[in-house]
Amino acid sequence: MAIDHPHRRTRLSALLLVALWSLAESKYIAYNTTQRIVADKLNVHIVAHTHDDVGWLKTVDQYYVGSNNSIQGACVQNVLDSIIPALLADKNRRFIYVEQAFFQRWWRQQSDEIKSTVKELLSSGQLEFINGGMCMHDEAAVHYIDMIDQTTLGHRFIKQEFGIIPRIGWQIDPFGHSAVQAYLLSAEVGFDALYFFRIDYQDLAKRKDLKSLEVIWRASKSRGLSADVFTGIFPKNYEPPPGGFYFEVNDDSPVIQDDPLLFDYNVQERVDDFVAAALSQANITRANHIMFTMGTDFKYQYANSWFRQLDKFIHYVNKDGRVNALYSTPSIYTDAKYALEESWPLKTGDFFPYADNPNAYWTGYFTSRPAIKGYVRMMSAYYLAARQLEFFTERNSSGYTTDSLADALAIAQHHDAVTGTEKQHVANDYAKRLSIGYSEAEKLVGASLACLTEPISSPGCYNTTTKFEQCPLLNISYCPPSEVDLSLGKKMIVLVYNSLGWKRNDIIRIPVISESIVHDSDGNEIESQLLPLADATINLRSHHVKAYLGISPSITPKFWLIFAVSVPPLGFNTYFVSSTKGKGSVASVSTFYSSEESKSSNIEVGKGKLKLLYNVKDGTLTHYLNSRSLVKASMEQTYSYYAGDSGSGNDPQASGAYIFRPNGTFPIKPEKKTPTTIVRGSILDEVHQQINPWIYQVSRVYKDKEHAEVEFTVGPIPVDDEIGKEIVTKITTGMATNKTFYTDSNGRDFIKRVRDYRSDLELQVNQPVAGNYYPINLGIYMQDDSTEFSVLVDRSVGGSSILDGQIELMLHRRLLYDDGRGVGEALNETVCVNGECAGLTVQGKFYVKIDPLGEGSRWRRTFGQEIYSPLLVAFSIEDGGNWTGSHTANFSAMDPSYSLPDNVALITLQELEDGNVLLRLAHLYEVGEHKDLSAMAYVELKKMFPVRKIGNIIEMNLSANQEKTAMEKKRLKWKTEGSSGVETIARGAPVDPSELVVELAPMEVRTFLIKFDYISFAKIGDR
Amino acid sequence: MAIDHPHRRTRLSALLLVALWSLAESKYIAYNTTQRIVADKLNVHIVAHTHDDVGWLKTVDQYYVGSNNSIQGACVQNVLDSIIPALLADKNRRFIYVEQAFFQRWWRQQSDEIKSTVKELLSSGQLEFINGGMCMHDEAAVHYIDMIDQTTLGHRFIKQEFGIIPRIGWQIDPFGHSAVQAYLLSAEVGFDALYFFRIDYQDLAKRKDLKSLEVIWRASKSRGLSADVFTGIFPKNYEPPPGGFYFEVNDDSPVIQDDPLLFDYNVQERVDDFVAAALSQANITRANHIMFTMGTDFKYQYANSWFRQLDKFIHYVNKDGRVNALYSTPSIYTDAKYALEESWPLKTGDFFPYADNPNAYWTGYFTSRPAIKGYVRMMSAYYLAARQLEFFTERNSSGYTTDSLADALAIAQHHDAVTGTEKQHVANDYAKRLSIGYSEAEKLVGASLACLTEPISSPGCYNTTTKFEQCPLLNISYCPPSEVDLSLGKKMIVLVYNSLGWKRNDIIRIPVISESIVHDSDGNEIESQLLPLADATINLRSHHVKAYLGISPSITPKFWLIFAVSVPPLGFNTYFVSSTKGKGSVASVSTFYSSEESKSSNIEVGKGKLKLLYNVKDGTLTHYLNSRSLVKASMEQTYSYYAGDSGSGNDPQASGAYIFRPNGTFPIKPEKKTPTTIVRGSILDEVHQQINPWIYQVSRVYKDKEHAEVEFTVGPIPVDDEIGKEIVTKITTGMATNKTFYTDSNGRDFIKRVRDYRSDLELQVNQPVAGNYYPINLGIYMQDDSTEFSVLVDRSVGGSSILDGQIELMLHRRLLYDDGRGVGEALNETVCVNGECAGLTVQGKFYVKIDPLGEGSRWRRTFGQEIYSPLLVAFSIEDGGNWTGSHTANFSAMDPSYSLPDNVALITLQELEDGNVLLRLAHLYEVGEHKDLSAMAYVELKKMFPVRKIGNIIEMNLSANQEKTAMEKKRLKWKTEGSSGVETIARGAPVDPSELVVELAPMEVRTFLIKFDYISFAKIGDR
Repeated sequence: MAIDHPHRRTRLSALLLVALWSLAESKYIAYNTTQRIVADKLNVHIVAHTHDDVGWLKTVDQYYVGSNNSIQGACVQNVLDSIIPALLADKNRRFIYVEQAFFQRWWRQQSDEIKSTVKELLSSGQLEFINGGMCMHDEAAVHYIDMIDQTTLGHRFIKQEFGIIPRIGWQIDPFGHSAVQAYLLSAEVGFDALYFFRIDYQDLAKRKDLKSLEVIWRASKSRGLSADVFTGIFPKNYEPPPGGFYFEVNDDSPVIQDDPLLFDYNVQERVDDFVAAALSQANITRANHIMFTMGTDFKYQYANSWFRQLDKFIHYVNKDGRVNALYSTPSIYTDAKYALEESWPLKTGDFFPYADNPNAYWTGYFTSRPAIKGYVRMMSAYYLAARQLEFFTERNSSGYTTDSLADALAIAQHHDAVTGTEKQHVANDYAKRLSIGYSEAEKLVGASLACLTEPISSPGCYNTTTKFEQCPLLNISYCPPSEVDLSLGKKMIVLVYNSLGWKRNDIIRIPVISESIVHDSDGNEIESQLLPLADATINLRSHHVKAYLGISPSITPKFWLIFAVSVPPLGFNTYFVSSTKGKGSVASVSTFYSSEESKSSNIEVGKGKLKLLYNVKDGTLTHYLNSRSLVKASMEQTYSYYAGDSGSGNDPQASGAYIFRPNGTFPIKPEKKTPTTIVRGSILDEVHQQINPWIYQVSRVYKDKEHAEVEFTVGPIPVDDEIGKEIVTKITTGMATNKTFYTDSNGRDFIKRVRDYRSDLELQVNQPVAGNYYPINLGIYMQDDSTEFSVLVDRSVGGSSILDGQIELMLHRRLLYDDGRGVGEALNETVCVNGECAGLTVQGKFYVKIDPLGEGSRWRRTFGQEIYSPLLVAFSIEDGGNWTGSHTANFSAMDPSYSLPDNVALITLQELEDGNVLLRLAHLYEVGEHKDLSAMAYVELKKMFPVRKIGNIIEMNLSANQEKTAMEKKRLKWKTEGSSGVETIARGAPVDPSELVVELAPMEVRTFLIKFDYISFAKIGDR
Repeated sequence: MAIDHPHRRTRLSALLLVALWSLAESKYIAYNTTQRIVADKLNVHIVAHTHDDVGWLKTVDQYYVGSNNSIQGACVQNVLDSIIPALLADKNRRFIYVEQAFFQRWWRQQSDEIKSTVKELLSSGQLEFINGGMCMHDEAAVHYIDMIDQTTLGHRFIKQEFGIIPRIGWQIDPFGHSAVQAYLLSAEVGFDALYFFRIDYQDLAKRKDLKSLEVIWRASKSRGLSADVFTGIFPKNYEPPPGGFYFEVNDDSPVIQDDPLLFDYNVQERVDDFVAAALSQANITRANHIMFTMGTDFKYQYANSWFRQLDKFIHYVNKDGRVNALYSTPSIYTDAKYALEESWPLKTGDFFPYADNPNAYWTGYFTSRPAIKGYVRMMSAYYLAARQLEFFTERNSSGYTTDSLADALAIAQHHDAVTGTEKQHVANDYAKRLSIGYSEAEKLVGASLACLTEPISSPGCYNTTTKFEQCPLLNISYCPPSEVDLSLGKKMIVLVYNSLGWKRNDIIRIPVISESIVHDSDGNEIESQLLPLADATINLRSHHVKAYLGISPSITPKFWLIFAVSVPPLGFNTYFVSSTKGKGSVASVSTFYSSEESKSSNIEVGKGKLKLLYNVKDGTLTHYLNSRSLVKASMEQTYSYYAGDSGSGNDPQASGAYIFRPNGTFPIKPEKKTPTTIVRGSILDEVHQQINPWIYQVSRVYKDKEHAEVEFTVGPIPVDDEIGKEIVTKITTGMATNKTFYTDSNGRDFIKRVRDYRSDLELQVNQPVAGNYYPINLGIYMQDDSTEFSVLVDRSVGGSSILDGQIELMLHRRLLYDDGRGVGEALNETVCVNGECAGLTVQGKFYVKIDPLGEGSRWRRTFGQEIYSPLLVAFSIEDGGNWTGSHTANFSAMDPSYSLPDNVALITLQELEDGNVLLRLAHLYEVGEHKDLSAMAYVELKKMFPVRKIGNIIEMNLSANQEKTAMEKKRLKWKTEGSSGVETIARGAPVDPSELVVELAPMEVRTFLIKFDYISFAKIGDR
């Protein structure tokens, strides 16, 4: 025989094993998992969970069905399928599920048998819904209305299907955390706690030192302690603790081998590992409860592989006795912390920006994919308007709904959707879903408008004959219904719908193919302005129509037809466009000047109170003047780019989809050879500037508006020099702003920002630019002694004030390196025509105003709502007939005498599937924000709904899954260190069912479910 | 808003989807999986399976519990856990399970509830055991006794626990297929079919062309058509068909997306893929049934992820209707093929060697890890002997069993165990298991021998006082119980047990520390020879004792004490060794000669009938002479090595654990400076040759034996030159052998081999050496007109006859490159002492004999049994007392007048747990192999078991899980092309219960279950 004898190295263990074989008998082990909380021990709450991104590297559907696994092995169907038998196998096991977009997909595929099992698991608490929105929405690049809508969609499904109300906020992955998330989407939803982990790495380290990872977050000045939320920050991530506790199929953490008849018995080692991990976490946590988040992205595909190990840990760790391990959920954990009756540290403000390393500020995604961000915002407004119209004409009466758009928008709020941190094919998927949802909603809107304009279309609107068309590509001047030949006497009907609760005077612009004039519904010609299409606009149009629709339009419009409209609240007005041929009433075609032709040193632009002055020599903006408010300020506006760091230096961190890491600032100097062009007209003046070959800017000053509108067209950003670029515009005034500026939180509260400073703890801001960037959804402003300077935006962008007196916005980004946070792609968006691809061109707007100190908020709030909710324009053709004789030309859902107070916005008006109507009203001002408008506001529902009778009205929590009173009674009242717990916060009183007046205190959002007893369609028709 | 509009590229699909949304409603789909066979369609049998290696890249226990996943993600516990709910979810689903080593691990951990569920699934046929041995044994490097034992262990468990008898052989992965597997381990086990896929790539291609992948394999000349087995060869591998049908968690095959509400609906594409795969396979398969092997290595860790897709395929493919898809098993498939009543092509011989590419002959593993191969063989014999002793003294009477050794040996037969194709740490694990099993069995053997030697130790043997020790490291001259100081009058008791059924005269050798003499049990001194330990032996001893036991023995023996023993069948004899000090009867210490000192040209070695002649000049062997048989032949023996191809040429195929790909042959010339040394003695002569610094050879000629014994010590093979080496010895005669030689099949039938030729089809042998290698377990021989030249081996090795008249054996391999078949390691075994590692040294033996034509078989068969079953030697000390007065010194379990016929071997004698005794007898000769011994043989059971009364005897099938008659009645009778189906094959008649004589026809193995009515322990004690 041979020499390779097995006694080698194994003799001792062999002897040991022989001993084990003799003593032990392998058999079925009934693991004891019954353990509950033990008061005098360290309780380790084992929270089994999966984190399922509603799209990221794969699309939401790919994640659900488990396709495209070559990109990422992930199948949510596996998770939900496998969790059921795993929970049935041991009634002590618990699991939480979060993302309802996935759950709903799964649920509708299940048999009645499985559905009934799931209901039992939910009712026993073995399965618990946490968070409960359709997705785990982002907190930086999302608007609060979208956050509310997507949460409501998830919560109401859960309530209707299961009668369950999620108790816990679970924002474990988003890249920073907003005040609105805390006080509105947590407290007002009724959450007893909010958990997450991504906060600044220095903040995290200090909180670990101070044991202040768990705090009371009081995020709203205006809502005060009524909106406190207990907030738990995870010490490392949302994964299992360090030490090898990952048990997905094929994971390589050591499994507990407790069969004495097999080799490598390791119970004690693994118990020691667990206890060590527990003690380590206990060391940075207050009180004798810690949470082990046992799961991570797309785990529990075979749930049993985790629970098998978790059972063993609980069994053996409790036998060991040093710590107490139990199956738990965030709710149980929260209740345990609450039961201690301790006081917790106070946290105010928010958790932006997020950095996980000195050179890794996650502030790039505030701007990443600006086109998607813009599209989401546009769809959000359209969804709001479409639901109003759906409500006016009864849900489903047209056969169309907003459901598909609701789903698409909900998913788009995901923290890898609107953030721009998903792979390109996934971004395309979100856009496609929005497009499909829009397409369905567009039909609903068309049908509803037809119904509302036709006098005898009651009820049901099935027999309407009027066809309304809309123009989603109006931004690139592509609008077939307005590009029609009116020479033979046809009239173009332009219906303008206003989804705001206020009467609205505004300017609209539509492309036309010939000189045209506009009449109102009384037959009076109204002022209009024809503006020849700039070459830049025409090129943009033809290129993108080809790229997106695959066609080359045969007609090219010649003019923008611009005219003023006046529309009642929640209503529409109708305008009539006809050819001027043979009528003599020609609109004033604008005159052109090249700035170089001018004689004086400055050129003044603007016919109304606002004037902008431009330097003759180089065409640059120099001053901002308001003759009414007497504001006069120097003002420059420039473009520049940051070179995206390639990560080739000592720190391999590149600038990418998530992270903004500039490597130098480079001013973009306007090119001399393309002169600034000024277009003047009766309604507005425009200043056209070709800043460089890939930046085109139009600045607009309206005769009747006191702000300037800037439309930028940026792209394709050149990268031939192999340098990624992040394009910013900087608006510079002479204001002494002392490092201080203000940015909104999800379009709602403004939060004070101080450059290079964090209020919470003494943190080092390592990146002078990226570390001072904040997300902007509504606007950014700053103040000096006498004025406030505000910039409002049309979508989510990143911005800052890097120099005193200066505001900068990041408008577009094109980068060449992945930034190492998982997406695995450079943020390099392109548009292709015939296989030739160029960088994506982005067009957007921002709005600039300087007000006397104390007066800025009114514009920011009121005009901010107008930006969010642009007028909805629909087109039809009057072919010979008498439109006004056969159609309703103007309409308001509200009493003609009524409009909402200036400080209140209608943010939801929606008929639900059950016929109830969801109404949300929001006070637009913070405490002290405006001397008059920060007061209590009153909404008269009887006047809001004059044709209907409110049979029943119930105030609900924000996500409308429970009555507000019940929520307030139930919700845990936490104690805060150094706080008396007594504070007078104004709040609207309960609604008196006879008066039906809704009171709203500053920043209050109130949600109602209304049952209407009676609807007078005839009355609508009459109006 | 922005330009990146979603209409891009998605417009058409968006429109399509809107249409789908309107029409479709996603809901629970009850997949129709009820389909059964349809006569007039192509039936696609979907066989869901997992292939679970009982050790390969990880150890068997690591695979079971799912540890060490960083090496390979694999957890068999997941498979077995998850299959249960998956089968319960749909009663049409089926799954097969194969490897009982895993199943048994799992089974004993299950709750009664799960056990009862599994029993239902088994009884309904949803779960079916296939193959059913402990492992899927190899077919090249295994001995038929081990194959039978491991199969029996699995089959009897299945029978006892579930009452089930596996019907199908499933050797899907082993690297070539043996005749013994077909006719013995398939037909005699009762299998209705045998399936696998690894056959020569040219053979496979031709069989696909000829549609002869399914054949009747008639593998035994002697057993003829009675041992036919229907054999199915898979067309590609044992995985799903090409086209994307892998559905493990995270696999990237396209899943069927059949929810119209989700994107990427793909039912038709996937149905088309399935139909295309089916038609492609049907194109190379006879009749309208094909099998889709839906699984592969360690799959179904989450079974639902496969069944979910398989359900959908069956549902939609059958809706499509082009082919008929059904859940099936190999049994159902086999029955379907059988029901067609077709005739199938005939296949004879075997399927060795296996090549999957022109330069990839899998003939390296015939020798890989020769030390493990030797250890397995040694343990196999020990297991056989230990069970005999266990039977003699009643199972469990000592508290010890052979169960652990049985398990270890069973697992070691796995096709990545004894093959040497596992990772090093796994090889260590197999060795450790054997060592533990040995250790337990050693105690059993010691206790049994004590019991048999002590007269009053009846029954139970609990009170024995005699201690017997054994020496598993005797091969490296390490034997503490024999290395004792006998100078003070102590005697060493040497008990010698013979597990053969024949009386046996043999020579044993034990290390002693001083001059000693030997007496038999009658007190007569017997001839002995003292042989000083060679330096090479002492170095080997001290190095490996240190390496394997971690100690440096304080004593070094001085001599090998060699003496002749005579032992009765199934019995023992006792010898007494005492110091010669002061007794004058000194053993003849051998005299040394250096060959260079000799005067004549040849030196003759051997005192008996056999003489070997050596050349004086270079010490090489020149002639073989037998004075009795008058055989005189020239004979040379040389060493050489093949350089292992590194795969750096055009074909990247390296020589490795599996594959033998030589890159040149290099003779190893004996080094002049170390002379050949001849040791002569009264019992044997030895020729010691240091061939080179790392090859040491001892050739032995015994006075009373007519064969030469060669003991080689090879290693550490140097690889400083960065060339892997495969060491062979070549024995060259002048015989004209016409390319023809014979090698055994698993130690049983000899199969004719013709160099560069395959009998089946006209195949090209691409590698002139590797392509002619065959596995050798018993021996290799060749013939000319007058003589036959045989070489027998002590373990599995690879060998061939590359030149006429020459036989070569590959003895050891050390290679530096992985050969790309998955193991991911170079075959580079080392032994380490104090952290210094050197290549593994291997010691082994082979035996050479030349007989007159027609006489070779007797030696091969009889001495072959002696090699397989060496004498078992145990030691004790007689310390002053009178051993023979107080102990039984000789014993035979059989009647003193009886021994088994020369042509019969006892291959199993084992008391089972239920008290029944398993007896297996094997005829050792093929039809026509020997003029006398190929006749019918008769075994008289009454004389075999003189002290017991056979109460009941039932003939069983080979694996003892069913009565033979029932098996023969049940087993399918297939029709063979061109065969009448009528053939007269001799077979033993049923056993007459009164006569109790077992008849055995050539190559017949008969298996019996015996119930003894009465055991006379007293009678045993008396003997």
